Amino acid sequence: MSTFGALFVPAPLREAVSDAAWLAGMVDVERALVNAAARAGVVPADAAAAVAAQCDPAFYEIEQLCEEGRAAGNPAEPLVRALRGRVGGDAARWAHIGATSQDVLDTAAMLVSRGALGLIDDELDGVARACARLAEEHRATVMAARTLLQQAVPTTFGLKAAGWLVAVLDARSRIGRLTLPAELGGGAGTLAVFGEQGAEVVRLFAEELDLAEPALPWHAHRGRVAELAGALGAVASASAKIGLDVVLLAQTEIGEVSEASGGQSSTMPHKRNPVSAVLARACARGVQVQVPVLTDGEHELERAAGAWHAEWNALSEALALAGGAAAAIRDCLDGLDVHVDRMRANMTGELFAERDALVERGVLEAGVDTAYLGSVDVFIDRALTRYRETQ
Amino acid sequence: MSTFGALFVPAPLREAVSDAAWLAGMVDVERALVNAAARAGVVPADAAAAVAAQCDPAFYEIEQLCEEGRAAGNPAEPLVRALRGRVGGDAARWAHIGATSQDVLDTAAMLVSRGALGLIDDELDGVARACARLAEEHRATVMAARTLLQQAVPTTFGLKAAGWLVAVLDARSRIGRLTLPAELGGGAGTLAVFGEQGAEVVRLFAEELDLAEPALPWHAHRGRVAELAGALGAVASASAKIGLDVVLLAQTEIGEVSEASGGQSSTMPHKRNPVSAVLARACARGVQVQVPVLTDGEHELERAAGAWHAEWNALSEALALAGGAAAAIRDCLDGLDVHVDRMRANMTGELFAERDALVERGVLEAGVDTAYLGSVDVFIDRALTRYRETQ
Amino acid sequence: MSTFGALFVPAPLREAVSDAAWLAGMVDVERALVNAAARAGVVPADAAAAVAAQCDPAFYEIEQLCEEGRAAGNPAEPLVRALRGRVGGDAARWAHIGATSQDVLDTAAMLVSRGALGLIDDELDGVARACARLAEEHRATVMAARTLLQQAVPTTFGLKAAGWLVAVLDARSRIGRLTLPAELGGGAGTLAVFGEQGAEVVRLFAEELDLAEPALPWHAHRGRVAELAGALGAVASASAKIGLDVVLLAQTEIGEVSEASGGQSSTMPHKRNPVSAVLARACARGVQVQVPVLTDGEHELERAAGAWHAEWNALSEALALAGGAAAAIRDCLDGLDVHVDRMRANMTGELFAERDALVERGVLEAGVDTAYLGSVDVFIDRALTRYRETQ
Amino acid sequence: MSTFGALFVPAPLREAVSDAAWLAGMVDVERALVNAAARAGVVPADAAAAVAAQCDPAFYEIEQLCEEGRAAGNPAEPLVRALRGRVGGDAARWAHIGATSQDVLDTAAMLVSRGALGLIDDELDGVARACARLAEEHRATVMAARTLLQQAVPTTFGLKAAGWLVAVLDARSRIGRLTLPAELGGGAGTLAVFGEQGAEVVRLFAEELDLAEPALPWHAHRGRVAELAGALGAVASASAKIGLDVVLLAQTEIGEVSEASGGQSSTMPHKRNPVSAVLARACARGVQVQVPVLTDGEHELERAAGAWHAEWNALSEALALAGGAAAAIRDCLDGLDVHVDRMRANMTGELFAERDALVERGVLEAGVDTAYLGSVDVFIDRALTRYRETQ
Repeated sequence: MSTFGALFVPAPLREAVSDAAWLAGMVDVERALVNAAARAGVVPADAAAAVAAQCDPAFYEIEQLCEEGRAAGNPAEPLVRALRGRVGGDAARWAHIGATSQDVLDTAAMLVSRGALGLIDDELDGVARACARLAEEHRATVMAARTLLQQAVPTTFGLKAAGWLVAVLDARSRIGRLTLPAELGGGAGTLAVFGEQGAEVVRLFAEELDLAEPALPWHAHRGRVAELAGALGAVASASAKIGLDVVLLAQTEIGEVSEASGGQSSTMPHKRNPVSAVLARACARGVQVQVPVLTDGEHELERAAGAWHAEWNALSEALALAGGAAAAIRDCLDGLDVHVDRMRANMTGELFAERDALVERGVLEAGVDTAYLGSVDVFIDRALTRYRETQ
Repeated sequence: MSTFGALFVPAPLREAVSDAAWLAGMVDVERALVNAAARAGVVPADAAAAVAAQCDPAFYEIEQLCEEGRAAGNPAEPLVRALRGRVGGDAARWAHIGATSQDVLDTAAMLVSRGALGLIDDELDGVARACARLAEEHRATVMAARTLLQQAVPTTFGLKAAGWLVAVLDARSRIGRLTLPAELGGGAGTLAVFGEQGAEVVRLFAEELDLAEPALPWHAHRGRVAELAGALGAVASASAKIGLDVVLLAQTEIGEVSEASGGQSSTMPHKRNPVSAVLARACARGVQVQVPVLTDGEHELERAAGAWHAEWNALSEALALAGGAAAAIRDCLDGLDVHVDRMRANMTGELFAERDALVERGVLEAGVDTAYLGSVDVFIDRALTRYRETQ
Repeated sequence: MSTFGALFVPAPLREAVSDAAWLAGMVDVERALVNAAARAGVVPADAAAAVAAQCDPAFYEIEQLCEEGRAAGNPAEPLVRALRGRVGGDAARWAHIGATSQDVLDTAAMLVSRGALGLIDDELDGVARACARLAEEHRATVMAARTLLQQAVPTTFGLKAAGWLVAVLDARSRIGRLTLPAELGGGAGTLAVFGEQGAEVVRLFAEELDLAEPALPWHAHRGRVAELAGALGAVASASAKIGLDVVLLAQTEIGEVSEASGGQSSTMPHKRNPVSAVLARACARGVQVQVPVLTDGEHELERAAGAWHAEWNALSEALALAGGAAAAIRDCLDGLDVHVDRMRANMTGELFAERDALVERGVLEAGVDTAYLGSVDVFIDRALTRYRETQ
Repeated sequence: MSTFGALFVPAPLREAVSDAAWLAGMVDVERALVNAAARAGVVPADAAAAVAAQCDPAFYEIEQLCEEGRAAGNPAEPLVRALRGRVGGDAARWAHIGATSQDVLDTAAMLVSRGALGLIDDELDGVARACARLAEEHRATVMAARTLLQQAVPTTFGLKAAGWLVAVLDARSRIGRLTLPAELGGGAGTLAVFGEQGAEVVRLFAEELDLAEPALPWHAHRGRVAELAGALGAVASASAKIGLDVVLLAQTEIGEVSEASGGQSSTMPHKRNPVSAVLARACARGVQVQVPVLTDGEHELERAAGAWHAEWNALSEALALAGGAAAAIRDCLDGLDVHVDRMRANMTGELFAERDALVERGVLEAGVDTAYLGSVDVFIDRALTRYRETQ
C-alpha cells in the first residue's frame, strides 16, 4: 500500500509484499530453476553451482532493475542479464535456462503470496480466538438484534461473535484450500528448451520451492490467481463485516462496545473513535477493488499484453490490505470493551412484539420461552465446536 | 438480462432466473417450511396441509407482489399476506411460521441458483467436450504461439485447446464444490419462534428442499453467496479467455480459425464475424461486474439495509450471463473451422530464433528437437486424462 | 432491471429503457437516416418516404429480432433486413444507407438515454425540492453531528439537508452538461458511402433526432458514454448518501427521522423500516457496478469485439436504477417525519467538549456562541440560493 | 504504486504522490490555516508567525506519523501534536485552529492532486502532439479499418490518429474543467470555532493555497473527488485505447506499427514487444479499479467511518497510474514506426466488397470514389483544428 502504508499494514506484512520480497522471490526462482535442471541432468552440476552462487538478492537493486525493465516490460529480463553478468564465463549460459520472464515473476508471485498468507493467517487466528472468547463469555449476554438497523428480536452478543467466528473460519478455510503452483513453461508454455525432460524439470523445480506442481503452465490461465484473490476477498469481507458491526454498536447512542484504545481526535477531546474497525473497513475496500484485476481472465493467447502486468501491484495490495484488515480487527476485538449493562438498557419492549403477537394468534403459548432466544445456544456451540476443531 | 436478453442468454436460462422462477422458489420455500414444521410437531398436520395447498405459484402475480412490496422492501412480505389470505381461517396463522422475509428470499435464491447452475453446467459440459475434441484432433497441428501478441515459439492448436479445457474443468470443479444452503433464522437469526426445536426444523426444512443445512443462519454472512459468485466469475473468465483467443485467431490477417455460422454484417457482405466469441466476451463482462455485489460483505448487524436487496438482481444477472457466456462459447467451438494450412503458413522463421540462439550458445545441441515442441504432448495428455475422469 | 424490477424502478422508467424503447429508438434512427440522406440529395425523396413509412416499431418484434440477431451479434442487422423486406421494390436499397449496425444502436442508445434522463431529472427535481424544504424548515433544528458515527459537535438538520441538496444539484448539473451525440460513421467511421456529402448527412441526421452532431464518429471512442455513466454514478452517489443518512438516523436508538410509510415486516408487527432509503441504496449499488462497463475504453480498433455489446444492458440498468434510486429517495424525503424533540434529547454534553476545551485554552472566550453552530446559517443560505437559481 | 513502481510510473510523478508529498501538503495546510485565521483577525499575528515557522515538512517524519496515527486513524492528528510541540508556549494553542483532521487531509489531497495533474497533463500534451503529428503525416496513408477485428473498409492511419487525438483532448478537457476545492469545516462541517467569521476564514484559506473556495464543507459529500476520479479514468481510457490499438497493429501478422525501442525478451532474441503500449494498458487497469473507491458516495453522516480513509491510497494510485499510462503512450507514439507499405500490403480485396455491392445495387455509381475513403479528410481536419485551438 503506497500511501500511509504504516497506518494500515503491519510492518512484517509490508515487508512480505515489498519490492525486496519480490526480488528475493525472483532470485529464489532462478536458483531453484538451475538446481532442478541440474538434478534432471540438463545442466552441468558445476555450472548450476556457479549460477546458484549468484542467486542472492543482496547482489541486485530492484529499483534499478525496474528502471531497466521499462524496456522489457518487466524486471525479470534485466535481472537475468545481471545474473548472467555476475556468473560470467561458460556457466552464464545456463542461467534462466528454459524459462521466460513470466515464469520467474509468476513463481515469485506465489512465493510472495505464501509468505504473506502465512502472516494473514496468523492475524486471522488471533481474530478467531477473540471471536471464540467473546462467543463463550457473552453466550448469555442479551441484547437487541437489529435488522435494517431497527431493533427486531432479542439475541445475545455471543451469537453475534459466533457469526463473526464462522465467517473468519470460512475465510481461513479458503486460504487453507489454496493451491500455490510453480510456473514453468518457457517462451510460450511448451517447455521447448527441455525437450522430453520438461515435465521432470517442472516437477523438480516445484519441489525445490515447495510449491505445487501445475498440470500445465498457466501463463494465460489465471484460475489459481483468481482463487487466491477470492480468498483474500473473503478475508476482507469477514473483517469488514466485523468492523461495520463494531462501528455501529459503538455509536454514541448505542454504546454497546468500545475500542479500548479508542482513537483520539485532533480537535474533540471526548471522542473515542472505533479506529481499528474503521481502518479495517478501509483496508477491506482496498482489497475488494483489486480482486477484479486478478479474476478477469482476458489474457491474450499464450501470454497477455497488459493483463498480466497489472497483476503484480494488485496482488501485493490485496495481500497487504487483507492482512491489514485482519490485523486491525484483531486489535479491535482484543481490546473490545463490551458494555453488558448498556446492551440490556437499550432493549426496548418492541423486541418482544413478535412474540406477543404470536401468543395472541395462538402460534405460541403464553409464557413459553420468555427470553425468546430460540436456538442461540445451539448455534454458539456449533461455532465453537468448529473453532476447536481448527486448533 | 434486461436488454436484448434473447440475444445473449438461452431461453431456458432466462426462465431459470426469471421473476417467475423466483416466485416459484419462494412458494416452494413456504411449502417446505410448513411441512418441516409439521414434521417437527410444531404445526398441526392439517394446518400444514391447508397451507401447502396454497403453495402454487399459479395463485400469485409476481409483478403485483413487487408493486406491493415497495412498502415492505421485498416481495416476500406481500406474498405471505396473500398466502395467508388464500389459506384463511385458523390454518392461516401457521403459514410462514418462524421465518422472516429474508429466509424466504435467500432460500429461493439458492433454489434459483441450483436450477441455473444445472443449465450452466450443461453448457460447460459441451464446452469441455469441444475443447477435448479439439485437443485430441489438433494435438500435432503446429502453429505459432504468441506472447504479447508477437510470434514467440511453436506450439500446437491442441495444446491451446488443452489449456482452455483445463480452465473449463476448473470452473466446473468450482461449481461442483459449491454448497447451496437453506436459510432459516427467523426475525434475527435466533429461530426464536421455534424455541428448542429450531435446529430440528432447519434440518427438516433443508431436507424438504434438498439444500444443505447451514450451521448458522447466514442473513448477514454472505460467504456462500460469495463463493457462488466466484464460481460464476470463473465460468465467465474461462469463457472470455476462449472468446478472446478465437477473436484474435479469427482476425483477417491471421485467419487460423473461423466460426462456422460467421456473423453477418448489416453493411459488409464479405464479413464473417466471430459473433459467438464476441457475445461470450460481452456476457462475461456482465458477470464480472456483478461479482462485487455478491462478495462485498458489508451487511449491517443481523440483516442488511440495502446490501442484501442489491443481491437479487446481481445474482440473476450473473447466473444468466455466465450461462450465456458458456453457451456462446459452446456454439463457437462446436462450429469452429480450424484452418490448419493457414496455421502453418503463418509461422515465421522467428519462431525458431530462440532455439537457434540456444544452439549457438551451446545450451541446446544442433538438430535436437527440430519441431521445438517440448512437452506439448505431455500437457495435452494430462488435460485429456483429467477430462475423461470427469465424464 | 431484470429481477423484481417493479420493486425498484418506477414503471415509466422501466418502459423508457425497455427493449420496446430500444426498438423504437432503432426505428427512429432508420427514419432519420433516410430523411437526412434525402435532404442531402443522396436518396430520392420518394424512396425515402417509402422507407420512412415502414419505420414504425409496431411492425417489428424485438424478441424475434434478438433471436435472429444471435447470428449477427446485434438486433440491428435483422431489423434492417426486415425493414428492407417491408419496403420492398427499388426503394428498399436505400434503407440503412451508409450506416452500420453500431450507428443504429449507438444512436438509439442516446435516444433511450435522453428519455430516461428526463425521467431521472424529474425525480431529482423532486428530491431537490424536498431537500430545500427540509433545509429551510429545519434551519435551526439543532442536533448532534456525528463523525465516524460518534457524536462530535452540534449542527442543525437544516445543514444536513443543505448538504444533500448541494449534492443533488451537482448531480443534476452533471446531467445538464451531458452531450448526447448522434452516431453515424458507416462501416468503419469513414462515412465511405456518402463520399463528400458525409459531413452534411451527419449534420442533418443529428438534426432530425435533435441530438448533438459529433465531430468524429465515436464507434470506438466512448468518452461521451463514460461521461453519461459518470453522471448516473453521481445520481446514485447522491441518492445513496441520503439513503445511508436516513437509515442511520432512523435507527431505533437514534430515532431522529422515520419514513411516513415505514415498511412492514413479514414477522415483526412493530417494525417501521426505512424501506425507501434501503431500496435507494440497493439501486445505487446496481448503478455503480455498471459504470466500469461504460468507462473502460478498451474498444478494439474501429469497432469493438465485445466491449460495445456489453454496453447495452449496462446502460439500461444504470439508467433504470439511477432513476429508481432517485425515486426512492424522493418518496423517502417527501414523507420523512423529523423528530425534532428526539434530536434535542439525543444531544449529549460531549457535543460541547471541544468548545469548553478551547475556552479553557483561551482560543475561545467563555460565553461566546453558546449554541456553537458556527457558519451553519451561511452554508444553508448558499445551498438554498443555488437551488433557487435552478428553478 | 507499490510494486515495481519505477517500471510503471515516471519518477516525478511517483514523488508527486509520495508520502513525502502528502506530508508537505499537510504542512502547507497548517500554515495556510493559521495565516488565513490571522488575516481574518482570529489569531494573533505573532502566534501565527510562530506556528508558520514550524510548518516545514523537514521537521516531521511521515512514517512515524503513520505509526502514531494508528491510534487516531489518520496521520494528521499526530502531526498536529508534533506541530504544537515544536511551536510550544502560548502560540501552540493556535495551531490547527478550527480544523479537523479531515480538513487537513482533504486539502492536502487536493494539493497532491494539483501537483500530479500538472505532470499528467504534461504527458497528455506530449501524447496529443504525437497524435496530431501522426494524423497530419498519415492523413492519406491508406490502411484497412477493422471492426470486430475483421477487415471492413479502407481508412487512413491519419484518421485513426485523429480519433486518438480527440479522445486525448477530451481527457485533457475533463482535467481542465476540474475544480479542486480547499476543505475547511471543523469538527463536523459547521466551522463552529470561527463563529461568524467562518466563511471569511475559508475564503482566505483557499486563497492562501490557490484552491477553489467550496460553497459548503464536503467532508461527506465527495462529488468533487468523484469528478477527479472520472477525469483520471478518462486519461486511463484514452491511453488504454491507444495502447490496445498499437498492440493489435503491432502483431507479427499485421506488423503495421512497431515501437522504436521494442522490448527485449529474456529468452527470445527476435521479439520486439510493444512494451510501452503494454505497460500503458496495465497502468490504465490500475486506475480504473480505484475509481469506484472515489465515486462511491456512501459516507456516513458528517464524516465517514472508513470510506474516507480508503480514498488516500486510491487517489495516489489513480494519479500515479494515470500519469504512468499517459507517459507510456507518449513514449510509445513518439517512437512509433509506421510501416506504410505493410498497411497497403495487408489490404485485402474484401475492403471494397461493400462498395462493389452498393454499386451493383445501384446505391453507388460505378467508379465514384474508388478509394472509398468518404469523410476521412474532414474528420482529420476537425481533430487537428481542435488540437490547434488548445495550443
